[in-house]
Amino acid sequence: MSRLLDLIRSGRGRVIVAIDDPLITLSKFKELVMKTKDAVSGFKLGLPYILSYGLDNIKSVITDFRDTYYIADLKLADIDVVMSLTTKVVCRVGFNGVIAHGFVGLKGGLDGLKSVCDELGVDLYIVTSMSHLGSTETYDLVIDKVLSVVEGLRPTGVIAPATRPEVIRRVRNYLGRTYLILSPGVGAQGATPGSAICAGADLEIVGRAITSSQDFVKASEEVIKSQLKYLEVSRCY
Amino acid sequence: MSRLLDLIRSGRGRVIVAIDDPLITLSKFKELVMKTKDAVSGFKLGLPYILSYGLDNIKSVITDFRDTYYIADLKLADIDVVMSLTTKVVCRVGFNGVIAHGFVGLKGGLDGLKSVCDELGVDLYIVTSMSHLGSTETYDLVIDKVLSVVEGLRPTGVIAPATRPEVIRRVRNYLGRTYLILSPGVGAQGATPGSAICAGADLEIVGRAITSSQDFVKASEEVIKSQLKYLEVSRCY
Repeated sequence: MSRLLDLIRSGRGRVIVAIDDPLITLSKFKELVMKTKDAVSGFKLGLPYILSYGLDNIKSVITDFRDTYYIADLKLADIDVVMSLTTKVVCRVGFNGVIAHGFVGLKGGLDGLKSVCDELGVDLYIVTSMSHLGSTETYDLVIDKVLSVVEGLRPTGVIAPATRPEVIRRVRNYLGRTYLILSPGVGAQGATPGSAICAGADLEIVGRAITSSQDFVKASEEVIKSQLKYLEVSRCY
Repeated sequence: MSRLLDLIRSGRGRVIVAIDDPLITLSKFKELVMKTKDAVSGFKLGLPYILSYGLDNIKSVITDFRDTYYIADLKLADIDVVMSLTTKVVCRVGFNGVIAHGFVGLKGGLDGLKSVCDELGVDLYIVTSMSHLGSTETYDLVIDKVLSVVEGLRPTGVIAPATRPEVIRRVRNYLGRTYLILSPGVGAQGATPGSAICAGADLEIVGRAITSSQDFVKASEEVIKSQLKYLEVSRCY
């Protein structure tokens, strides 16, 4: 069972903090983890952040705070050999999970990556659709195909956009309760905290609403409070 | 006009060398560039390689050999904000081009990335389909949509798989001669040197067939010779 599920069940807030912008200095990142790790379920580091600071620096923070959960959000979308090499490289520094795109398909793609994740004991999350408008032009046209890829692959979880709750509902209806659904797009991208969970997600991914705040603790508490309030007053999935 | 087109027109071989595996040490990478840069049109560095050695080390090689062309092959596939941040970070070290997935779509995705590439003077290449079998399950189902995304975006070029020459022909027929077509999958992945160019590509991307060789010069010369021979005896696009 995923360590992430353990953390949720232990009562951490249903929030993953997304860290993408290199303007968040390493010491700010460290402060963010230290101050919010007991309130939220984990941290998702984006490609610009990882590239900008380099794996050794990221490792030093992860090593200092092992009692949380770290996802390398490289949005892997390549042939099996390349995605597997990448995963081996990033997971050496202590990441617990990686994210890859469902549109890559299985054969010679995600199937090889899944084997490597299983060997390494790393969780795999598959993007089923994205939060921006462009995603409706392409990704959404093959969402059923992507979901059948997910069923063939059996990853730890999937990614579905908070900005389009109807997509979350569709993903949850299709996949049932077998997979975790992580949902980005809450806060700066427009979705209200709680709305994605209400539509069927397990966790909401929140970036700038927390990372741009002067007070990380207050900002993350506010997001969690807003989630609870939303769930209290809404008829949810 | 792209610097890459200048290099092709100056008579360099129609090969881009792909460097993905961290087993290629930095000094091997440096040797590879030094010895083959006048024979081939450029170098494409994959995500596992860039992550493994870090941007500062990559920069030191690029800075030493400026008279060629470097593509950061991160297969970008995220929202505009994240792809733009990533491109700003990698292009600071001297890359001339980046690769992103057409699957992402325009609005809130590739359109924002294109603006940043234009600001930075960096070439953008869009993946239209991939070389592995899994790509036929998903990507190929929306290839016309992806090609309309390319037309809306007007990047420097596109990526189409050498392992499936019928896809290259389709891409070339759809897009005409406006865009460069770069084609991966030659060598280790199975396509014969010259076959992708014959189908309509401008350049073939060759990785392991050159990078795994004990003699980089000989291996790249052999690929270029094979290309010319293939083109001589075949009825090409």
